[in-house]
Amino acid sequence: MKTTDVREDIPLLKDVIYLDAASTTPTPRPVVEAMCDYFYNYNANTGRGAYHLTVKATHKLDEARNRIAKFVNSDPNEIIFTKNTTEAINMVAHGLEFKKGDNIITSNMEHHSNLVPWLKLQKQGVEVKIVKADEQGIIDPGAIDKAADENTRLITISHISNSIGSVQPVDEISEVAENKGIFCLVDAAQSAGHTELDLKKLRADFVAFPGHKGFLGPVGTGFLYCANQAQDQMEPLNLGGGTVDNVTEEDFQLAESPTCFEGGTQNIAGFIGLGEAMNYLERIGISKIEKHSKKLTRIMYQEIQDIEKVRVYGSPENIYGIVSFNIDKINPHDLAKILDEVKSICVRSGFHCAMPSIRHMGAYEFGGTVRASVHYYNTQEEIEILGETLKDVSKFLG
Amino acid sequence: MKTTDVREDIPLLKDVIYLDAASTTPTPRPVVEAMCDYFYNYNANTGRGAYHLTVKATHKLDEARNRIAKFVNSDPNEIIFTKNTTEAINMVAHGLEFKKGDNIITSNMEHHSNLVPWLKLQKQGVEVKIVKADEQGIIDPGAIDKAADENTRLITISHISNSIGSVQPVDEISEVAENKGIFCLVDAAQSAGHTELDLKKLRADFVAFPGHKGFLGPVGTGFLYCANQAQDQMEPLNLGGGTVDNVTEEDFQLAESPTCFEGGTQNIAGFIGLGEAMNYLERIGISKIEKHSKKLTRIMYQEIQDIEKVRVYGSPENIYGIVSFNIDKINPHDLAKILDEVKSICVRSGFHCAMPSIRHMGAYEFGGTVRASVHYYNTQEEIEILGETLKDVSKFLG
Repeated sequence: MKTTDVREDIPLLKDVIYLDAASTTPTPRPVVEAMCDYFYNYNANTGRGAYHLTVKATHKLDEARNRIAKFVNSDPNEIIFTKNTTEAINMVAHGLEFKKGDNIITSNMEHHSNLVPWLKLQKQGVEVKIVKADEQGIIDPGAIDKAADENTRLITISHISNSIGSVQPVDEISEVAENKGIFCLVDAAQSAGHTELDLKKLRADFVAFPGHKGFLGPVGTGFLYCANQAQDQMEPLNLGGGTVDNVTEEDFQLAESPTCFEGGTQNIAGFIGLGEAMNYLERIGISKIEKHSKKLTRIMYQEIQDIEKVRVYGSPENIYGIVSFNIDKINPHDLAKILDEVKSICVRSGFHCAMPSIRHMGAYEFGGTVRASVHYYNTQEEIEILGETLKDVSKFLG
Repeated sequence: MKTTDVREDIPLLKDVIYLDAASTTPTPRPVVEAMCDYFYNYNANTGRGAYHLTVKATHKLDEARNRIAKFVNSDPNEIIFTKNTTEAINMVAHGLEFKKGDNIITSNMEHHSNLVPWLKLQKQGVEVKIVKADEQGIIDPGAIDKAADENTRLITISHISNSIGSVQPVDEISEVAENKGIFCLVDAAQSAGHTELDLKKLRADFVAFPGHKGFLGPVGTGFLYCANQAQDQMEPLNLGGGTVDNVTEEDFQLAESPTCFEGGTQNIAGFIGLGEAMNYLERIGISKIEKHSKKLTRIMYQEIQDIEKVRVYGSPENIYGIVSFNIDKINPHDLAKILDEVKSICVRSGFHCAMPSIRHMGAYEFGGTVRASVHYYNTQEEIEILGETLKDVSKFLG
């Protein structure tokens, strides 16, 4: 499938230049249609029901889980459905037992969702060690290794920074964790669906995934990969229907993973959609996506770099999918609004839910950055229009 | 809108007799179309973005929250989006501070989702007092009043039992709580959308709602009503993007309700669908729904009561929407399968995620019950077919 084929499946791309994949991606028609098929033809609950409609819904949801597991090279029981990446990370924050005196290592490049849950634990006596990134927003695995001690219980890092797109050496970081017997969590919010993620190779204990970003699935979906070896150390966050095998008035017995982590009726339509989204990505080919988006990132960086009075964050060799920048002293929101009004270009602006990283990159005083982010549905022409428009705006307002 | 009009909007009702509303309901076409409109025309994230697509998505999501708030007579900031009822209840279990020695009062008629989160707290030194229902599955507010003492922090009761349909006197129960200054949580999983729920009248502090049952919204949606007066005592469950106003490397400041409780990207399409579902219910009229479903419940109870060797649970005066029963010693799953095979009748079978209530009603030894549950889309003819088919099966197997 070519970019033009994918664009045919996403009607809104005819009207706008959508450069906000880092926030969410538009859902292609076959994914929406898989959800409609559920709603119109077998809209039943899953679980232990006997009638054929519920059996079909259960089978389809199982199939989606298997599809997702295969896509990231894991076992199906290691895939826990969540509503978004944030819930997946909070599941680990609540699920692992942290004692006073334990510490957690993270970085100053994290999305708030991979920082605030840990700062909350800090209020309960757990220390949070913040490893500082370099000037390009890259974290040194050596610094993490140095920070780790016998009280370190978790190392948690985003694969790709959502604020500036810097790619972290997560393989080396998970190796540090593994060598020291420390749990490792990777936040794959910005890498999932954009690059191949083989969880058997990555060797992290936990990986938090969005369904609605790079995977091109619907909003309302995400999942936590919880490796087999970590499952018995995790307490479920949402207890209730489906999570238990036996309940008396005094006690309960938890079911096995993943069911023990999935209380209540799941977003059945959403996860069936996410399974279909992975079929869709497979039809494109993940390596083709990566090649395409790397090229667009490079061109975008260059186009923006060429503008007068511009500040671009991160180095072109180490960012992927995202280019974050400021022009002179133009407020990022104003610039984003102008781009939208002039050429219907959709880009994010502000702190990107990652204030510490924005401070670290020196963009706090500007009110954050403007962030453009791409996926396979974007074209080189769109990037060139972004570049030209920015040049015009810069001249006009500079 | 008549029942026949609603049936036109739910294609699968042409093929099956769907009597499993207590588990989930099929989503009518206008609700699915509202979601498709989002996916095809303004599939952007919500929040602080500047471009028109994200402004539109944000506006539509706000509109949905306002719609939902109006429907249950609450303020919009009291409506916290969740993925299902279970998450809403767990939000309270994690969000309120419970100390060793505190106690929680609930009943033996609860769904596991309104029991297991409290039994979990019991492991941390909080006492769970189980008030026993009478033989018809009804809880006496006097018994709750008697159980409450100075250490009682929460009274939590399901409005309608999901296992047998018994309707609890929640108004009187919330009055007991209010008079004693105890928090009150009502699980509205089986009453929401089936009967008028006026939260200003009910006066509970918390009410847990499913979006995908009586409201006819999509799976993947639910919400917690958290009254203004209770909000400052609630700690958010899912911290991260959107829940905070300011974040440093050391600390964070929580946003106001409801945003502080809604970490990460929400199920935007789902909640826009749920808002549309409430417009749909309004077009039918909630009093018309209640009149229709009460009539069907009465007929269904009578039809089933007339069968030989039948046991029906609860009394016809005190159940609504649900009829739970056993025929002789036929395993409930077998009976449900037969109904499906013979006449495409969809009913639940088993313990209905409410084992203690099934034990209490004496149905544990049968492997649970068969449960038929209705909504406005069901017809008297369908109930008569259920009755006739059960009579035939009973004769044949009895």
